[in-house]
Amino acid sequence: MSDTRMVRFQAEATRLGYDFSGPLQIGGNYVSTLKHGGVLHISGQVPRVGSEVVVVGEAGTDVTLERAQHAAQVCAMRARVLIAQAEGSLDAVQQVLSVRVYTRSAPGFTQQSEVANAASDLLVRVLGPAGTHTRTSVGVAQLPKGAVVELDMAVAVA
Amino acid sequence: MSDTRMVRFQAEATRLGYDFSGPLQIGGNYVSTLKHGGVLHISGQVPRVGSEVVVVGEAGTDVTLERAQHAAQVCAMRARVLIAQAEGSLDAVQQVLSVRVYTRSAPGFTQQSEVANAASDLLVRVLGPAGTHTRTSVGVAQLPKGAVVELDMAVAVA
Amino acid sequence: MSDTRMVRFQAEATRLGYDFSGPLQIGGNYVSTLKHGGVLHISGQVPRVGSEVVVVGEAGTDVTLERAQHAAQVCAMRARVLIAQAEGSLDAVQQVLSVRVYTRSAPGFTQQSEVANAASDLLVRVLGPAGTHTRTSVGVAQLPKGAVVELDMAVAVA
Repeated sequence: MSDTRMVRFQAEATRLGYDFSGPLQIGGNYVSTLKHGGVLHISGQVPRVGSEVVVVGEAGTDVTLERAQHAAQVCAMRARVLIAQAEGSLDAVQQVLSVRVYTRSAPGFTQQSEVANAASDLLVRVLGPAGTHTRTSVGVAQLPKGAVVELDMAVAVA
Repeated sequence: MSDTRMVRFQAEATRLGYDFSGPLQIGGNYVSTLKHGGVLHISGQVPRVGSEVVVVGEAGTDVTLERAQHAAQVCAMRARVLIAQAEGSLDAVQQVLSVRVYTRSAPGFTQQSEVANAASDLLVRVLGPAGTHTRTSVGVAQLPKGAVVELDMAVAVA
Repeated sequence: MSDTRMVRFQAEATRLGYDFSGPLQIGGNYVSTLKHGGVLHISGQVPRVGSEVVVVGEAGTDVTLERAQHAAQVCAMRARVLIAQAEGSLDAVQQVLSVRVYTRSAPGFTQQSEVANAASDLLVRVLGPAGTHTRTSVGVAQLPKGAVVELDMAVAVA
């Protein structure tokens, strides 16, 4: 496989300790990706691997910053899998445009940016300059399946 | 009226027990819809009918899953009214692109996807394949007017 | 400076009592703005001036509605600075398309629309009809750096 983005993706999967090669489960009546006008919209991703959400709970109480960052990276990896499935390869990504990162947050937890940085860093590591993006990070009350992080994005594709 | 989407819309309005024919009230200095580059952006909708928000409260405590789903459907119906007003008819919808569903959630409530499914199902029932969409569902601390659900969307139009 | 939008921007800065002429600090590995297909995406802005977030806390308990509105205006001013930096001038703005306003909210605080109105009003005062927009306002559990408000937007540019 000469696709260096896919090679870097696999390196990240190995580092995180997960296999992202299976089908991705969806939690409702919607589609994972949809392309219009050269922009691929990607549904909100929780850190699910196979049928398990790998980090559940609330950042600042039962989930540490490090585990929330781990979760954010899994969400970003899932988004990448979906892009590759929709477009055939990560090479189709011209530019990640916008990323929204929702962190389930305890009242005193204000490190939503630090959680999101873990996903942002991974995007740039895998995609290079095409992985830079605008971003919004907020702390929410709760997320589907009790996940600690959810992430969605829009990506310009060839 | 030969527009089958509008006929299906009316059937859903009858099922929900509301009349959506009046003007839709807006809570601030913004517009309900705005079109650019073939995409219609729709402002966040709470489940208001006339001047009343029909389901207020917090999912998981004073609002059941069923009532939150009812609210999500009312939000989706309002969005449809706004599309029809902006474009003359629901026939203009080529594809719903992205939907965000915010559910006011008690600490232990994790069925945000199930709430959002009620809106997603209704979109597909009324619009057919054009109603499928990408989606993000999160649980928030509070919503305008105490509403239990808020929903916004972007739609590709002819 | 004959640019009346920039003149009006300066008048708002004076009224708010801040100097927005310095570089804007960013809290993570992302970019403040990114343009694609005639749309400028703007990252989520907290009410930071220089290195200080000027209003921290929770609307409804330690932050009044008036202070949250002040914060929303600072967020909107920051977004304007970023547009002017990216495009050379506020004259490039054809239309603000969508604005999302996240207010950190106490359980009983339901005036998210009123908070967002302060930002919406300011957008229209500075940009005129080009400042009208679609909007989504939600109440969240927490925000980066403890900010009371965060705001992002997408803007059509020439």
